[in-house]
Amino acid sequence: MRHCLIHRISTLSALILCVVAGHAVADEEGTIKYRQGVMKAQAGYMSAMGMVVQGRADFAGNMADHAEGLHRLVKIVPALFPEGSDFGETDALDKIWQNRDGFRSKAAEAEKAASGLVAATQSGDPGKIGQAYKAVGQSCKECHEEYRRKKN
Amino acid sequence: MRHCLIHRISTLSALILCVVAGHAVADEEGTIKYRQGVMKAQAGYMSAMGMVVQGRADFAGNMADHAEGLHRLVKIVPALFPEGSDFGETDALDKIWQNRDGFRSKAAEAEKAASGLVAATQSGDPGKIGQAYKAVGQSCKECHEEYRRKKN
Repeated sequence: MRHCLIHRISTLSALILCVVAGHAVADEEGTIKYRQGVMKAQAGYMSAMGMVVQGRADFAGNMADHAEGLHRLVKIVPALFPEGSDFGETDALDKIWQNRDGFRSKAAEAEKAASGLVAATQSGDPGKIGQAYKAVGQSCKECHEEYRRKKN
Repeated sequence: MRHCLIHRISTLSALILCVVAGHAVADEEGTIKYRQGVMKAQAGYMSAMGMVVQGRADFAGNMADHAEGLHRLVKIVPALFPEGSDFGETDALDKIWQNRDGFRSKAAEAEKAASGLVAATQSGDPGKIGQAYKAVGQSCKECHEEYRRKKN
């Protein structure tokens, strides 16, 4: 906790120094907002694809594109959580930085699942697509349950 | 208004018939949710890219990928609004269907802007990227102002 506070103060000081010095610098809030944008895009893809998988929207022809877009975003997940982006308006839990290997392992599982969805959409087989979609959803859920603040 | 009501009743009847007959059919709500997912993904991309454009997040290397993902989604916008997806939980205004050509024209402008952003990100020139990003934002805004219900 103490370490955490010192870390935060030092990060903030560095930021203030840069701003005072007139540099345009990436800031923690900007990094967090970037991450949230990327996560939002992923959620949008999953939500859209879910409707097709359930047979509720006639856009099967877009699935391969969506899966590829999603996969590209899932691949960058580990990079979205650099040191110093662990405070501010974020639901990311400290555990991400405390258990870096565990987090990376979960992210790698999600990447594998998303890659599987790309392959399934390319096959065009609705059964395979449905299963692969479910696997992606499951890996999102597992990572969120472990590393994201619970929503009330 | 009367036409609109009749249209809605007939669409609903067709849906009920299909459900009664046991077919798995795309429904209006599913189509709307699909559309909202695609729009959410676009908003996520714009939000993430905005942080990079403002120099607030160090992810310039992802810009070309994001721009391409966004462009692929913007391209399908006109197809997201089929006849019959004009009621339910949607912010889409009737004007989309009443002024189909006008809407298509606005969507085509957005597509052109998104294509310009792809080109700019491939150049890697931050000035060009910033301008192209702004043009995309402007085209989103113009279309939303004209064809989307105002948020309170």
